[in-house]
Amino acid sequence: RSMATSARKSLTIGLIPADGIGKEVIPAARTAIEAVGSDLPPTRFVDLIAGFETFTRTGVALPEETVESLQNECDCALFGSVSSPSKKVVGYSSPIVALRKKLDLYANIRPVLSVSPNPGESSAVDMIVVRENTECLYIKQEQQTIGEHGKEARATRLITERASSRIGRMAYELAKARPRKHLTIIHKSNVLSVTDGLFRESVRALHEKYPEVTVAEQLVDSAVYRLFREPQIYDVMVAPNLYGDILSDAAAALVGSLGVVPSVNAGDNFVMGEPVHGSAPDIFGQNIANPIASIRSAALMLRHLGYMKGADRIDLAVDSVVRDGQLLTPDLGGKAKTSEVVEAIVKKI
Amino acid sequence: RSMATSARKSLTIGLIPADGIGKEVIPAARTAIEAVGSDLPPTRFVDLIAGFETFTRTGVALPEETVESLQNECDCALFGSVSSPSKKVVGYSSPIVALRKKLDLYANIRPVLSVSPNPGESSAVDMIVVRENTECLYIKQEQQTIGEHGKEARATRLITERASSRIGRMAYELAKARPRKHLTIIHKSNVLSVTDGLFRESVRALHEKYPEVTVAEQLVDSAVYRLFREPQIYDVMVAPNLYGDILSDAAAALVGSLGVVPSVNAGDNFVMGEPVHGSAPDIFGQNIANPIASIRSAALMLRHLGYMKGADRIDLAVDSVVRDGQLLTPDLGGKAKTSEVVEAIVKKI
Ligand SMILES: CC(C)[C@H](C(=O)O)[C@@H](O)C(=O)O
Ligand SMILES: CC(C)[C@H](C(=O)O)[C@@H](O)C(=O)O
Repeated sequence: RSMATSARKSLTIGLIPADGIGKEVIPAARTAIEAVGSDLPPTRFVDLIAGFETFTRTGVALPEETVESLQNECDCALFGSVSSPSKKVVGYSSPIVALRKKLDLYANIRPVLSVSPNPGESSAVDMIVVRENTECLYIKQEQQTIGEHGKEARATRLITERASSRIGRMAYELAKARPRKHLTIIHKSNVLSVTDGLFRESVRALHEKYPEVTVAEQLVDSAVYRLFREPQIYDVMVAPNLYGDILSDAAAALVGSLGVVPSVNAGDNFVMGEPVHGSAPDIFGQNIANPIASIRSAALMLRHLGYMKGADRIDLAVDSVVRDGQLLTPDLGGKAKTSEVVEAIVKKI
Repeated sequence: RSMATSARKSLTIGLIPADGIGKEVIPAARTAIEAVGSDLPPTRFVDLIAGFETFTRTGVALPEETVESLQNECDCALFGSVSSPSKKVVGYSSPIVALRKKLDLYANIRPVLSVSPNPGESSAVDMIVVRENTECLYIKQEQQTIGEHGKEARATRLITERASSRIGRMAYELAKARPRKHLTIIHKSNVLSVTDGLFRESVRALHEKYPEVTVAEQLVDSAVYRLFREPQIYDVMVAPNLYGDILSDAAAALVGSLGVVPSVNAGDNFVMGEPVHGSAPDIFGQNIANPIASIRSAALMLRHLGYMKGADRIDLAVDSVVRDGQLLTPDLGGKAKTSEVVEAIVKKI
């Protein structure tokens, strides 16, 4: 599913490194995009701020100007990673969750692929986690009250037919375009018969429009178990927000490192690339963060916008550096610096 | 944490095989308990019904008589596994979730241990998932309404200070009794700052009473990732209900099979053993289900009641059969029948 590229004479990309290693890997992704050159229209980057550091400095985690620039000026964006406060901080709320919501980026698409298959050989792990990105517990409707036995907190989990159908449609479209054309619906309707029941039914109801896709379903607990035991049974998985969050991290563990797993947050009118990893404060500033997840997120974003050639050039360059095995960051067992990996990738682009 | 055994002149154990392979593995657990003989007081078993099959036959998944027998007649119980309907079935609601609630079995304790360490050698995976068992989304407060864009469903997630503190206390007690004395608190307070914030704070607040325990915390997505990458970092994990459900299945994948992972549902006055696996309708009736999870659940239940000697005899017998490697069910790569494994274990008890 790609947006029309024809009308676009230039490309404006918002860059939101946010916290920690986001500040190392987003510049890396920019460098990779710049290397693509003439396979993209003239490209302009806009530096934008958000994150916990922005919050501690300005009192706001997601400044209005950042949102406005994305809405009015940018065609797409790349987001880095946010640090979570280690204690509860009054007034702080995750900017990435807010951005997904404000820009209605309802689909979080996370392809997970084994790191180093030989060229042409099919990969042991090759799946896409399609995660609903706007509702579930992520609507953040929470209250605390005082009950008979102390504090009581409640959160609302929202599942709508509309959001379930549109994420379902996205998942069927992605499945249809893949060789195996297989979709697994993830839910926990043995406990949440109403909310997860609605998710399941809404996705199931679309099946008649996609007869070429085979459909299975699994309870989320059992899905995580089987993901580790038999990853090859999965092709495309579609899940409500929180299950998708957990499943994509679980799948990342299968391919060796979160440092290589890209994603896009996609809506009907905007797309934002985002590495699946976090801000990793423990390794920040050492020039050893793996830039691959961000660089692949850039490729995925370009692909989503219809720039297949540019995306392919980035992905093939990354594949080749990974297969080479000479320049890998520590998370993949190597000793290379972030900048060395970026340089090698840029050379191959 | 064990309940006083002194006052007990006899032991009455409720057996609720429920659905599918539950009907094969609960009898196996009974046989193992019977083999313990004089290390237990005179023991009586009460056969009780519940489950999806019970529902289709009687219209009720958890009959009143079953609950009454457990409350009035039994000292403890063993529960098998329930099948989930493949479509939404009006009036059906999971009996295991209801039982945990009705008997106030607030702690689901799931030790996960590598299957076959040599005797004396420390195990690669050796952790306990301590799962809150009465609230979170499992309170099943759900409604469906019709909104502007179709159906909308909402569920309430409840986290209380009281439930978080009592599960926290259980987790610290368990951690304190282990060599490593390490506790990891699982939450997602970067999104659910109120509910998971309360869980985290409530468990953290107990730390001053257990200075010998070291405490870490992790976001649930990252915890699942690290569970697969570095399982050795975990000792005891404490989690709200749903995260605990997912984490215990994830941990089970690490030790080769859900077929070996036991649990108890424990309250202050009652304990119910339960294998972590499901009802596995695909293998039911073939005499190939792994009885070890249920047999170990029986041992765990006895241990919780204070019958250490009986519990040890069962566990050592299972260890020895597993280490032997001659009689393993298909989930562990063997060809043995359920009944052969039970026989071998009983011989060693
Ligand atoms: C940082 C956090 C709010 C976020 C999420 O839970 O969505 C992250 O885990 C992710 O997967 O992008
Ligand atoms: C059967 C189901 C309701 C149950 C749960 O989610 O608790 C099961 O997955 C478990 O872990 O015991």
